[in-house]
Amino acid sequence: MSFNSFGRVFRFTTWGESHGPALGAVVDGCPPGLALSESDIQPFLDRRRPGTSRFTTQRQEPDQVRILSGVFEGKTTGTPISLMIENVDQRSKDYSEVAKAYRPGHADYAYDAKYGFRDYRGGGRSSARETAARVAAGAVARAAIAEVAITAWVSEIGGDAIDPVNFNADEIGNNPFFCPDAEAAKRWEALVDGARKAGSSLGAVVECEATGVPAGWGAPLYAKLDSELAAAMMSINAVKGVEIGDGFGAARLRGEENADPMRPGDDGPLFLANHAGGIAGGISTGQPVRVRIAFKPTSSILIPVETVTREGEASEIMTKGRHDPCVGIRGVPVVEAMMALVLADQKLLHRAQCG
Amino acid sequence: MSFNSFGRVFRFTTWGESHGPALGAVVDGCPPGLALSESDIQPFLDRRRPGTSRFTTQRQEPDQVRILSGVFEGKTTGTPISLMIENVDQRSKDYSEVAKAYRPGHADYAYDAKYGFRDYRGGGRSSARETAARVAAGAVARAAIAEVAITAWVSEIGGDAIDPVNFNADEIGNNPFFCPDAEAAKRWEALVDGARKAGSSLGAVVECEATGVPAGWGAPLYAKLDSELAAAMMSINAVKGVEIGDGFGAARLRGEENADPMRPGDDGPLFLANHAGGIAGGISTGQPVRVRIAFKPTSSILIPVETVTREGEASEIMTKGRHDPCVGIRGVPVVEAMMALVLADQKLLHRAQCG
Amino acid sequence: MSFNSFGRVFRFTTWGESHGPALGAVVDGCPPGLALSESDIQPFLDRRRPGTSRFTTQRQEPDQVRILSGVFEGKTTGTPISLMIENVDQRSKDYSEVAKAYRPGHADYAYDAKYGFRDYRGGGRSSARETAARVAAGAVARAAIAEVAITAWVSEIGGDAIDPVNFNADEIGNNPFFCPDAEAAKRWEALVDGARKAGSSLGAVVECEATGVPAGWGAPLYAKLDSELAAAMMSINAVKGVEIGDGFGAARLRGEENADPMRPGDDGPLFLANHAGGIAGGISTGQPVRVRIAFKPTSSILIPVETVTREGEASEIMTKGRHDPCVGIRGVPVVEAMMALVLADQKLLHRAQCG
Amino acid sequence: MSFNSFGRVFRFTTWGESHGPALGAVVDGCPPGLALSESDIQPFLDRRRPGTSRFTTQRQEPDQVRILSGVFEGKTTGTPISLMIENVDQRSKDYSEVAKAYRPGHADYAYDAKYGFRDYRGGGRSSARETAARVAAGAVARAAIAEVAITAWVSEIGGDAIDPVNFNADEIGNNPFFCPDAEAAKRWEALVDGARKAGSSLGAVVECEATGVPAGWGAPLYAKLDSELAAAMMSINAVKGVEIGDGFGAARLRGEENADPMRPGDDGPLFLANHAGGIAGGISTGQPVRVRIAFKPTSSILIPVETVTREGEASEIMTKGRHDPCVGIRGVPVVEAMMALVLADQKLLHRAQCG
Repeated sequence: MSFNSFGRVFRFTTWGESHGPALGAVVDGCPPGLALSESDIQPFLDRRRPGTSRFTTQRQEPDQVRILSGVFEGKTTGTPISLMIENVDQRSKDYSEVAKAYRPGHADYAYDAKYGFRDYRGGGRSSARETAARVAAGAVARAAIAEVAITAWVSEIGGDAIDPVNFNADEIGNNPFFCPDAEAAKRWEALVDGARKAGSSLGAVVECEATGVPAGWGAPLYAKLDSELAAAMMSINAVKGVEIGDGFGAARLRGEENADPMRPGDDGPLFLANHAGGIAGGISTGQPVRVRIAFKPTSSILIPVETVTREGEASEIMTKGRHDPCVGIRGVPVVEAMMALVLADQKLLHRAQCG
Repeated sequence: MSFNSFGRVFRFTTWGESHGPALGAVVDGCPPGLALSESDIQPFLDRRRPGTSRFTTQRQEPDQVRILSGVFEGKTTGTPISLMIENVDQRSKDYSEVAKAYRPGHADYAYDAKYGFRDYRGGGRSSARETAARVAAGAVARAAIAEVAITAWVSEIGGDAIDPVNFNADEIGNNPFFCPDAEAAKRWEALVDGARKAGSSLGAVVECEATGVPAGWGAPLYAKLDSELAAAMMSINAVKGVEIGDGFGAARLRGEENADPMRPGDDGPLFLANHAGGIAGGISTGQPVRVRIAFKPTSSILIPVETVTREGEASEIMTKGRHDPCVGIRGVPVVEAMMALVLADQKLLHRAQCG
Repeated sequence: MSFNSFGRVFRFTTWGESHGPALGAVVDGCPPGLALSESDIQPFLDRRRPGTSRFTTQRQEPDQVRILSGVFEGKTTGTPISLMIENVDQRSKDYSEVAKAYRPGHADYAYDAKYGFRDYRGGGRSSARETAARVAAGAVARAAIAEVAITAWVSEIGGDAIDPVNFNADEIGNNPFFCPDAEAAKRWEALVDGARKAGSSLGAVVECEATGVPAGWGAPLYAKLDSELAAAMMSINAVKGVEIGDGFGAARLRGEENADPMRPGDDGPLFLANHAGGIAGGISTGQPVRVRIAFKPTSSILIPVETVTREGEASEIMTKGRHDPCVGIRGVPVVEAMMALVLADQKLLHRAQCG
Repeated sequence: MSFNSFGRVFRFTTWGESHGPALGAVVDGCPPGLALSESDIQPFLDRRRPGTSRFTTQRQEPDQVRILSGVFEGKTTGTPISLMIENVDQRSKDYSEVAKAYRPGHADYAYDAKYGFRDYRGGGRSSARETAARVAAGAVARAAIAEVAITAWVSEIGGDAIDPVNFNADEIGNNPFFCPDAEAAKRWEALVDGARKAGSSLGAVVECEATGVPAGWGAPLYAKLDSELAAAMMSINAVKGVEIGDGFGAARLRGEENADPMRPGDDGPLFLANHAGGIAGGISTGQPVRVRIAFKPTSSILIPVETVTREGEASEIMTKGRHDPCVGIRGVPVVEAMMALVLADQKLLHRAQCG
């Protein structure tokens, strides 16, 4: 079975392969009457778009989104919103090598083992290109949660982390790394350039914060807000770890250190700390919701790796195409989109049960 | 909305509160003809059972499971399997304090914010007691995936980790910590005792490995094996982080270090490493599936913490009941159960689509 | 796969066999804060209870319901409501004949073909006894849709229909047939008695009306209100047909006859007819929602029928147990329950999307 | 909430409005390795296509389908199959009247009541044009159930039924009514012509039979094969009734008349009758699966009907556009598609649980 939908009542389905004619998303369950046009979605796609700096893949894709249904006279109608993005730069390249041998770290072998064969052109369905459809769907989700502000950034590349003291949200848009620390951004230029020139790749950590989430969103027990976020983030290509709030750091704290004490506040309790990342018992507490996500280095590298062919012969492979030296960077708008999609769903679920 | 079911085709639903008459699970979609009796389930519940050492809560619960449906003449019939566990030790305690003020780090405030009120007795539905129902359901799942062996253990308590060199799977059952390193287990006695006597609590890291999972399980894109595992683990009480394979460690590797090279093997490729944790593109590769889970220290501590009352007044609270100094320990059988439940579901999903 | 759950956000799961220790339902997603106790549920079970007249099966079941979770201090908490009914009169009867040969018209052969074997005691999971769990769940649903009034009745038995002119809702509770036409009820006594004495059985038509449903409930396209009602009713044992509004009668009308013209009214349009049964485009119009359901005669008859054994030998079989001469009669409270369950789900779904 | 998906593991989602740029379906969960191209889908769309005779709407739509994903080198890959059909003949017509007043019998008022406003051009999402997407998805489903043959036909128009004696499956394709009785087809010409010229419309009954369905498909209890079929058929525009096997006729039979006796056969039992329509206990028995469906006369007529405006003023309305004098006719390929979609899903569900 193949499940290409996500969400319970605010639900989206994506389709499309890296080298097919197009890819897209169908967003179902969106509230009616929200203002929505292509220009509300395009900016998010532009942030994720490849080829915008030398630190991302050189594939050239305009990633122009079209709304094919679900919007009438500039407003959502409550019916499914079909979004389509055409694939333009499907460079006619020789894929015979990838067709024959498995790229280690890629989904090649797993897809073959599952389905018996695979669309080997650019990774087919397992390509990170699919995330364009998520970003488009995420822009619709944002329209459904106008009360929430979502920001993500890269906090670490190749083990080199930002200094929290230097954190400046305004800086995020000023460099090609979505980096909130201007000094780190400078260091990363050399770091990522080095990896790129060496034909290697680097991992990264992305962080995401959602403010304005009211207390009470989250559907215990098996659609807890943190559980849904973990599923959403872990479904992104190259993600290998998810933390809520202090995450693994919390495992090293004592109970009294990890507590988030409360004092009387004007609108509900005032929390004195946010180790929990804004979620308790799977339900939002009104504090900022915080998630950290680990991206592995992409497996597409210009360094040969031992592998086997489809026929089981020993071989070596090295990815010749255009690829990201650090996929985590372009993960930022995708992480934001998944946060928006989870929150929109939880908002509607909360409304369903609690009126 | 409240979603108390998990799984797509091998699906379970849990119900019950900490201080209600009973709790239970309904397992739906289990293949017919599997041998199953209460004695197949009870040993798993016994491992999770409270009150078995001074390192866990002193609540005394026999946790005897009853099968109420779905089994006939010792075999599963393919109809829903209803499992019930009675609550016995619901010590009639004074909950007036918890009813009035929110325990920081607990779900108290979040439940109130969501539902308008809450069952405050022992945490109600948000109590870790619910995990008994998961462990029972997990035992049924194991019957459906006889080809798979699942083992979990505690690898770190309060920041003190095991030494991988000392790893000995046989040791796991020899100490009250599910610890595979005999030396670490000795150190942890003092550590956990200290926290217990200080009225404090400790976090922990649990690791879980499933061997025997064939290549091909996993349902891309939004029911990827790793995505489902992340959701499953993050839904466990006190869990704040999930890693697949190298997890956050992968974010510090270079592409060539993180690759899992392949050589020809007798049954498919032989992998020379397992940074990926047995999953690529959301699909199992045939290697062991590996997950790491971070448990926060329980918020139930004997040290007073600043809080507010339901009426919004400043207050202080301290948990007087019987609680776990390190909830991560009893998380081990729960983690194994969730692994089994995810794999059983993915096995059936794979069979549905790929025959 | 076996799907024992129904509903999208107001969702219930049933479990249990005819001759197991108990049966039950778990209701998930119920709004919090609704007054609910066992005495709110019991009256509906009493209406469905066997053995109350000579026109229904003589199995004696008290059908006492217990609420095991989800209710605290007399109010729903928003967590799953577990309902359990013990089986008392599982007469220790000789089932060896049913174990060996298939009863035509029963699920015996189909269950064997699907699962490889079956619980043959009293039909196991395919027994109409399962509907007790639905009726209990339906009583919870009613609490969630206080604005709606639901009434069902038998309108035809063995081809003998009520006279619409004699329709009197107050009459429904005055006879053992849930018949709104006192004269028909009298005729049916002889009719059903005759069938019972002949060891035969009769079919029936049940009608159900829900008033107070506001305009706007229904989730197009594949969870349309009429589509959900059709699924719900067709899932009841012995049901073979479902009509909304005029149903098959509408297929014989011309467009102008079938239209439901509107005039200005105080609260929205005033409809001059209700051929549509209160649903247009899958969405409620504010008119009474009307459904008709066909029940076949039960296949449990004292008249021998040709059949085959599990081993494929020719045989004859005749049901010796206690059975309903007209199962449609006891279908009335089940139909009402399914109506309530569908409407509660649609109410919450509407609230999710449209606020 | 709006649910535009159908199916559990073989699942499709449709999108699109009558007068938007396009409409389509995403089919998810299709088994890999099936031969599929646009030419496998197009013939089914051609059968449903408007404008092919004077007995259907004169809207001219080529209904050319494009496969945008999920197929590689002529075979399904196991990833989502995106199907798109462009809307060509969106005649720029004056919809101001429909925008202002509600057409009785249409979804106009219900959509407004639910969503606050509506896309009034040609019925928007509630238009029967959406069924083109179902037909395309159904063609994919047929590829997944090659063992099954599905045939539907019109058995009654405006109360004039075919004579079962004249039933000839080969005749179905020989007339514009999908009528298996050549004589009835002749009578219907005059009948439908008369209605068309009078600006009126007629209802119809469609029957559908699936042969080759093995015993054992069906997912009790709430995804029973008959329950899923009822939901599927009732979700089609203009459908008001669904019968399985004898349907309402069974309610007039006695138990011994309604039984389907069995005799030993070469491959399982030989049934001597098929009152049940091939389904017992919600599971297929190996007999032909039979369904009957009632279509109301379309509400789009040239005869003025009393109505109200959006502002609540009294008015009259009459549909000026191009419409079907008997929508049931073009319902035939849609009914077949829904049958195929339900069976494909049930086949996969069966395989999931029972291997």
